Amino acid sequence: MKHLLAATAAFALTLPVSAQEEPKGAPSPNQIVESAAASEWVAISPEDLLVMTLAPDAQGKARQVVIQLMPAPFSQGWVENIRTLARAQWYDGISVNRVQDNYVVQWGDPNVDNPEADGPAKPLPIGLNKVPETEYMTEALGLALSMNEVEIEEDPYAETSFFEQGWPISWAEAQSWPVHCYGMVGVGRSYSPDTGSGAELYTVIGHAPRHLDRNIALVGRVIGGIEHLSSLPRGKGLLGFYEDAGKRVPIESIRIASDLPAAGQPDFEYLNTGGETFARYADARGNRRDPFFITPVGGADICNIPVPVRRINATK
Amino acid sequence: MKHLLAATAAFALTLPVSAQEEPKGAPSPNQIVESAAASEWVAISPEDLLVMTLAPDAQGKARQVVIQLMPAPFSQGWVENIRTLARAQWYDGISVNRVQDNYVVQWGDPNVDNPEADGPAKPLPIGLNKVPETEYMTEALGLALSMNEVEIEEDPYAETSFFEQGWPISWAEAQSWPVHCYGMVGVGRSYSPDTGSGAELYTVIGHAPRHLDRNIALVGRVIGGIEHLSSLPRGKGLLGFYEDAGKRVPIESIRIASDLPAAGQPDFEYLNTGGETFARYADARGNRRDPFFITPVGGADICNIPVPVRRINATK
Repeated sequence: MKHLLAATAAFALTLPVSAQEEPKGAPSPNQIVESAAASEWVAISPEDLLVMTLAPDAQGKARQVVIQLMPAPFSQGWVENIRTLARAQWYDGISVNRVQDNYVVQWGDPNVDNPEADGPAKPLPIGLNKVPETEYMTEALGLALSMNEVEIEEDPYAETSFFEQGWPISWAEAQSWPVHCYGMVGVGRSYSPDTGSGAELYTVIGHAPRHLDRNIALVGRVIGGIEHLSSLPRGKGLLGFYEDAGKRVPIESIRIASDLPAAGQPDFEYLNTGGETFARYADARGNRRDPFFITPVGGADICNIPVPVRRINATK
Repeated sequence: MKHLLAATAAFALTLPVSAQEEPKGAPSPNQIVESAAASEWVAISPEDLLVMTLAPDAQGKARQVVIQLMPAPFSQGWVENIRTLARAQWYDGISVNRVQDNYVVQWGDPNVDNPEADGPAKPLPIGLNKVPETEYMTEALGLALSMNEVEIEEDPYAETSFFEQGWPISWAEAQSWPVHCYGMVGVGRSYSPDTGSGAELYTVIGHAPRHLDRNIALVGRVIGGIEHLSSLPRGKGLLGFYEDAGKRVPIESIRIASDLPAAGQPDFEYLNTGGETFARYADARGNRRDPFFITPVGGADICNIPVPVRRINATK
């Protein structure tokens, strides 16, 4: 399972590529990642993994999505709420209600604030944090030392780099915040100052909507099975909501991986973003020198340098 | 049909939005576009529209995708080939063969360079241009006057702005080229110096893969029905090719709209990118002041300012 890497592959027309003569050249970003020493891969704690099980698809096939939660110091009030909601089994039986092309897939209780609800909204468990919107950002003081040295040119939004624990981060003045790249997971909310509890979540399935940075809480990213969300039919209602309740995709359960039996826990690793291989990979993403490319473009925005993540056991 | 605008809508949790009290505030990018005078909308010539009809979906529903071809001076050798291929009805019976998450959907003759082909490759019509790779770029001389005055901060790739005919463009030194944003359509090719004929095409369904700029020819963009491509199941083979030939989506036909009976021609317009409304819209994309937003981010990359396009007759 290497979908976060898939976009780095060469862009050949022919299929399968193995059957053709590949010209010699510099290694591709993928090949650089494959050359990393085992010691450069960092295991992701099962306490930081959410396992979301959707109802089987029309062919009866299982659909599992795995989300990695953000580490401290980012968004921990909401991340704590998500663990509380998962452990209360609150998410079980909610649904994917919104799929908006080139934007987001969103899931939650379809009966919240819905005048056409077919039942009452689901009561939230007690003990959820009410997180203030100031928490969209984090004091950058002290973080600077944890940023790696990959040089990324300033983009139209802000300075960006990689937090050593493996996440795309922006900063300005004394504040820092996570970035809305493809696959990032955030907390749906209504109008300010409601910052959302974590009961309603979304993931990005299009071009990075960076205008949401600092306006919504980011709490994680999809690292497995995003295709089960990104390939869903688009909703035809306003904002991509499904107009027909029958189109919603039921969520059977969302669990913290560490709460699952050991045999059912997915094992994931990310490439150390502070390491030598990641620096070479990031450079190659912005300066493709592998045989397909004619003109290395001389840079990449942070969302075009997805942090390599791999699953080291098969889907069970 | 306004899917190019859809991503600009507010990000409310509730549904439907009309049922809730929307706080007063500055207009959203969508609302700005809706306020444009009729004279700011420019009709797209049916000679510049490709109508792609996929086989009906599993429920028997028709699937139509509409592509706008690029205007001069960009990529005209390939655009001419595409008109030749469409008029020879060469595309009829080929298929969508590749769907790679956060990257591209690609269609063409599945038997080209395929050791597992179930038949011979389809011969190309005579009269196709062999376009040199120098055509990935265009002399920028003279173009400068056609760029609008929307100010976009430099991104990690290049200077960018909008060509007045309504397209995202980059430039450096004396050269200019189109940009790989979501929905842009390009010409699949093998390794250099084979630049592709236009028989194999792809569209972007993820974060803008700007490393492809100047490395592949861009020839247009999807302006209708992209959801019929972006929501297809992802291919499980290398690069997202379907391993099982049965998963390929047959293409019934691709026609130039002007060759269709008048009643079957889709009518599309784009918002004049040289006009006052577009400038306000672009500013609002980078500085959201509508009620949902707390922190305007102060900028947008060119792919986060999709050119507004609308269909003015219903799908027939």
